[in-house]
Amino acid sequence: MADLWQECMDYAVALARKAGEVTLKEEISVMTKSSPVDLVTETDQKVENFIISSIKEKYPSHSFIGEESVAAGEGSILTDNPTWIIDPIDGTTNFVHRFPFVAVSIGFVVNKKIEFGIVYSCVEDKMYTARKGKGAFCNGQKLQVSGQEDITKSLLVTELGSNRDPETIKIILSNMERLLSIPIHGIRAVGTAAVNMCLVATGGADAYYEMGIHCWDMAGAGIIVTEAGGVLLDVSGGPFDLMSRRIIAASSRSIGERIAKALQIIPLKRDDATN
Amino acid sequence: MADLWQECMDYAVALARKAGEVTLKEEISVMTKSSPVDLVTETDQKVENFIISSIKEKYPSHSFIGEESVAAGEGSILTDNPTWIIDPIDGTTNFVHRFPFVAVSIGFVVNKKIEFGIVYSCVEDKMYTARKGKGAFCNGQKLQVSGQEDITKSLLVTELGSNRDPETIKIILSNMERLLSIPIHGIRAVGTAAVNMCLVATGGADAYYEMGIHCWDMAGAGIIVTEAGGVLLDVSGGPFDLMSRRIIAASSRSIGERIAKALQIIPLKRDDATN
Repeated sequence: MADLWQECMDYAVALARKAGEVTLKEEISVMTKSSPVDLVTETDQKVENFIISSIKEKYPSHSFIGEESVAAGEGSILTDNPTWIIDPIDGTTNFVHRFPFVAVSIGFVVNKKIEFGIVYSCVEDKMYTARKGKGAFCNGQKLQVSGQEDITKSLLVTELGSNRDPETIKIILSNMERLLSIPIHGIRAVGTAAVNMCLVATGGADAYYEMGIHCWDMAGAGIIVTEAGGVLLDVSGGPFDLMSRRIIAASSRSIGERIAKALQIIPLKRDDATN
Repeated sequence: MADLWQECMDYAVALARKAGEVTLKEEISVMTKSSPVDLVTETDQKVENFIISSIKEKYPSHSFIGEESVAAGEGSILTDNPTWIIDPIDGTTNFVHRFPFVAVSIGFVVNKKIEFGIVYSCVEDKMYTARKGKGAFCNGQKLQVSGQEDITKSLLVTELGSNRDPETIKIILSNMERLLSIPIHGIRAVGTAAVNMCLVATGGADAYYEMGIHCWDMAGAGIIVTEAGGVLLDVSGGPFDLMSRRIIAASSRSIGERIAKALQIIPLKRDDATN
């Protein structure tokens, strides 16, 4: 299947670029989803429809999990079938504000393993790509994580999220407090999970962690991190689970495990929960 | 003096660009200052020396306040004399990690008022400039703040800072908690005060606030915000004071005042304190 997956990947890169170009030209028409700060725009839906219909035309037997399709009521159970996991606009709040980090994310999963991933950070015009066993690249340049193993010399990326439940905010901030007190060099937040993870892949940050995101935020960038030499872990320190809504993406296992040790876990319903 | 200050500004733009180019080519040799996470590099010192010596040659009667000169023991009392306030590398921790936001900041102050400001975000190759009464620009394009007045629709930028005193960390995080709970759309942190403020000037963020920074972090970008239509306030809601180590830079007075209302104030020694 190697050549077929390569053909899929080449097609996905072209679609991601086109989707990013469309996004940049759009007028912004904003709505809300789960809370007054969980934003979605007509562009999210339009771009996801464009990506999925373009792929379906070419690969009618494949499966899809897309952020907006799921929001519209479609399932998000991951099977062994070749599955495209799509976030048309990762960083919708950024998009609404014209904060300059907005990404198209496409992950391609077969037998529940990510085969390739694409993150197109469209305002920056950075095309991040990775295929299993073939390395990770940004605009054709090979990526390598920092390899940092010392947490006290690390720069982390994470987000404050869009959940405004007081208990959740408290856990998010107390996790930051525990990490800052280790101490670490600092924490940055650019507003998209996919770009944060790509920053780990470039070596610019040493680790990313977050709870409450979704498979479509992680599927594209996850393999970009591992192919750049990084590791994915669950926030418990155990194995990463794409449907668990939680991740540590680190430049080394030791930094990842040290972060896991510091984190208090936020209870979350899995992406593939059936009720 | 209008023409003389314009000549100074043109010279400063060229120097900032040259300084950014030097910074990008440097090997990184890192040291620490006030704490294990307060970083400085040989490049900070080299670039500041280059900027100050270049200006002194041309304008020998002018005064200087530079981050590294102050660290080396020089004073930082602001007089009415034309004064160049310089941060050779705003975002030193980013620079050490190759996190892609690193800026040269130059502010020019006469009679304690900022006449012009320059922030060169060198990895992005974005040259932000503003002169009093003449507007703010990025790479020649005119900037305009968002004008957002509704805090519940706002995106803020701030930083967690490099102070690892437990009490300070607690106040920083509890300020975030209070703001998130209003609610607001979100908080971003790119790791440099100057670039955060320029993001407000572009309209990408609606306000920036921070306590614990220095006049050299604010002098260049401060006038970029006001010339883009924004306002500078003290974190108390009162008038902005360049030497106070605290700032709110907002797209509107109402958002700035709402943020001031939420903030618990961190006690700080002023930049011009004499002991």
